Amino acid sequence: MKIYRANIIFTPSPDKLEVIPHGYIVVGSNGLIEGIYTELPENMDWRRQVIDFGDKLLIPAFNDLHVHAPQYRNLGLALDLELLPWLNTYTFTEETKYADPEYARRMYRRFVHELWMQGTMRAAVFGTIHPEATRILADLFIQAGMGARVGLVGMNRNCPDILSNTTESLMEGMRMLKAHLDEHGNNGLVSPIITPRFIPSCTPDMLAALGNYAAETGLPVQSHLSENRSEIDWVRELEPDSVCYGDAYNRYGLFGQTPTLMAHCCYSGEEEIALMKQNGVYVVHCPMSNSNLSSGIAPIRTYLEKGVRVAMGTDVSAGHNMSMLRAMQYAIQVSKLHYAASHGEVRFLTLSEVFYLATKAGGLFFGKVGSFEPGYEFDALLVDDHYLNYDNYTLEQRLERYLYLGDDRDIKRRFCRGVELTEPVY
Amino acid sequence: MKIYRANIIFTPSPDKLEVIPHGYIVVGSNGLIEGIYTELPENMDWRRQVIDFGDKLLIPAFNDLHVHAPQYRNLGLALDLELLPWLNTYTFTEETKYADPEYARRMYRRFVHELWMQGTMRAAVFGTIHPEATRILADLFIQAGMGARVGLVGMNRNCPDILSNTTESLMEGMRMLKAHLDEHGNNGLVSPIITPRFIPSCTPDMLAALGNYAAETGLPVQSHLSENRSEIDWVRELEPDSVCYGDAYNRYGLFGQTPTLMAHCCYSGEEEIALMKQNGVYVVHCPMSNSNLSSGIAPIRTYLEKGVRVAMGTDVSAGHNMSMLRAMQYAIQVSKLHYAASHGEVRFLTLSEVFYLATKAGGLFFGKVGSFEPGYEFDALLVDDHYLNYDNYTLEQRLERYLYLGDDRDIKRRFCRGVELTEPVY
Repeated sequence: MKIYRANIIFTPSPDKLEVIPHGYIVVGSNGLIEGIYTELPENMDWRRQVIDFGDKLLIPAFNDLHVHAPQYRNLGLALDLELLPWLNTYTFTEETKYADPEYARRMYRRFVHELWMQGTMRAAVFGTIHPEATRILADLFIQAGMGARVGLVGMNRNCPDILSNTTESLMEGMRMLKAHLDEHGNNGLVSPIITPRFIPSCTPDMLAALGNYAAETGLPVQSHLSENRSEIDWVRELEPDSVCYGDAYNRYGLFGQTPTLMAHCCYSGEEEIALMKQNGVYVVHCPMSNSNLSSGIAPIRTYLEKGVRVAMGTDVSAGHNMSMLRAMQYAIQVSKLHYAASHGEVRFLTLSEVFYLATKAGGLFFGKVGSFEPGYEFDALLVDDHYLNYDNYTLEQRLERYLYLGDDRDIKRRFCRGVELTEPVY
Repeated sequence: MKIYRANIIFTPSPDKLEVIPHGYIVVGSNGLIEGIYTELPENMDWRRQVIDFGDKLLIPAFNDLHVHAPQYRNLGLALDLELLPWLNTYTFTEETKYADPEYARRMYRRFVHELWMQGTMRAAVFGTIHPEATRILADLFIQAGMGARVGLVGMNRNCPDILSNTTESLMEGMRMLKAHLDEHGNNGLVSPIITPRFIPSCTPDMLAALGNYAAETGLPVQSHLSENRSEIDWVRELEPDSVCYGDAYNRYGLFGQTPTLMAHCCYSGEEEIALMKQNGVYVVHCPMSNSNLSSGIAPIRTYLEKGVRVAMGTDVSAGHNMSMLRAMQYAIQVSKLHYAASHGEVRFLTLSEVFYLATKAGGLFFGKVGSFEPGYEFDALLVDDHYLNYDNYTLEQRLERYLYLGDDRDIKRRFCRGVELTEPVY
């Protein structure tokens, strides 16, 4: 058992920050939170054990629900291009390099290190079509002690031959990855996720095989949905029998039949929204990416009001920064531009709402993660904001200033499932 | 004379990055650039003097053309509020504190230090109505060796009494500030700027006095223009004889009769645009602020195409970050959201365009500043991006990655008018 004392801040619900000045959090040896206290019970044994972090902030660690590991080298590059030239010139070119396990290891070490640095303790990650590179990526998460759903990518049409796998090779790779992680995945901390790139990249045959595999294994699914208008038109041509883009996944059992993440959803219509809600599909909001690729602004307020699940992602490298702090800033800001464009009709997102999205909402995809409540896994960041706290700020204001002004320098300790993680080698 | 060697990057024009790998820049003892060379002329005296910065990047320093010094304490705060409650609850409350010179000194030291840290070597700055606090701010710029146009703010209506000055006290304060800076302003590096807060805050009497003072002294002017729709309606009520909001300034001689900065311009109409162009008024684009306060997206591409001058500002603390890197990122990104909303009609801003805006376009307000051309003042940043440059990146890519991913840590040396500046005390 460990007992930490700090200024504790978290969001059990989206509408309010829970703030406990100099509170205590008790973590069991299984990594689960046993209790939160403003004052410790009168128990001398407990008092002796308190690890006092002083005036620092203790917050849930971040969860990035959509990020492309093999695009790490391209972070901050080619952002003057639109989706298709960006994809063909930069993204696909880079992803082909992951046929080389040594290249993969070199870059993935940096990628996992950067996630750690930014305080993202859990991530849903796209790899490439390459089974060995993807296993290396999973192993790096295991070594780092971080949580991940790691996706071997399926793609066999409308893409370069060199980046195309077959349904057979994909399924064989998936089975190998699953067997490997069933055995070595740190008790489920690292596990596979079924990852068709998106409808235009996958033949019906591949989608059907992945849907069957989801039904057989219960593994979760991640992909892209309704990111921009021309993509939606394209899917309509490719899957004319589907009611909407989301239905194209749904018909193959890849839309909430098991837990499902769909990135973007900038232009989901009524039918798609209803289907997402009915099936419990997560919208993964990636506002940095949607700005950088000129996709538009996803109507997150609408999704929240309709009861659709929403989480957040950086979508590196269409998102230009691995920091979930930045993702939160953009989520608020683009919602304000939407608010302005709607002449004040659609309320913008608040700070506590986006903090909830980046912590608890995303965390729930991984289990009881992302909040400081009894029974939750202790995923946490210790934040030293003293350089921002030079005047009389409240704890709520200190959190706000950290979210807007802070960066990786401020994170002094990182915990995942109760374990304090040291810096991964890179 | 100094000779520096580094990877030199700058934008003599908006459409192209000029890149000189391991080039030389020769700076005279007057702080002006004498020449740029790919190879030094065969001259042994020169060669002995080269200060070789190795593989680092040397770029023009940033110029922030709209920033509120007394809002520094509120950076990252209250961004869930809209303009008016934000102004009344946070901004005005904070600005009243600057009646106390000791408070002003304490906060302004931090403000000037932060500008230095972020690599902003010149700024057009709003102070408050308080002459002594504003002189302290100017003195801190002088001590730091940085460039600034410092504004004693005029406001005498529609604001709290405690934040209201009279035309007489404002003019007396302006004359004192000018006399002080004529004598001590580091040869014009720090000088005053006429600063009516905005039309709703200033009576015709005050505006007329400021216009006369501009005509008499030739001092430049800064204010706010067409930031949001309700503000424009309000100005129409207050100044019914004006053709547009900009014309309300123009009628008082505060719209380009001397060099003039107008922040925001999210909703300038045809007449206002024509007047800005005709009078050479600068639009100061503040995309962070326009997002945070739900103002909207300023049509910068339109202004550029019509030949209106454009520069950039952070607009702290409505802008949430003092870094011009962030301002540049947002300028590109909101232009892409505008591009998406216009269904691809209005081209988005490119990296070289916003780099030009943040360096040369803004610099020209201060003289020959913001570019590495003969006769320009040497304002420069030395950037160490080695941690971003772990693979084979071109110099253009290294600049792009620094602009998207870098921060104050990367700036190793800062020069203003040829002088390397040490860290200001704070």
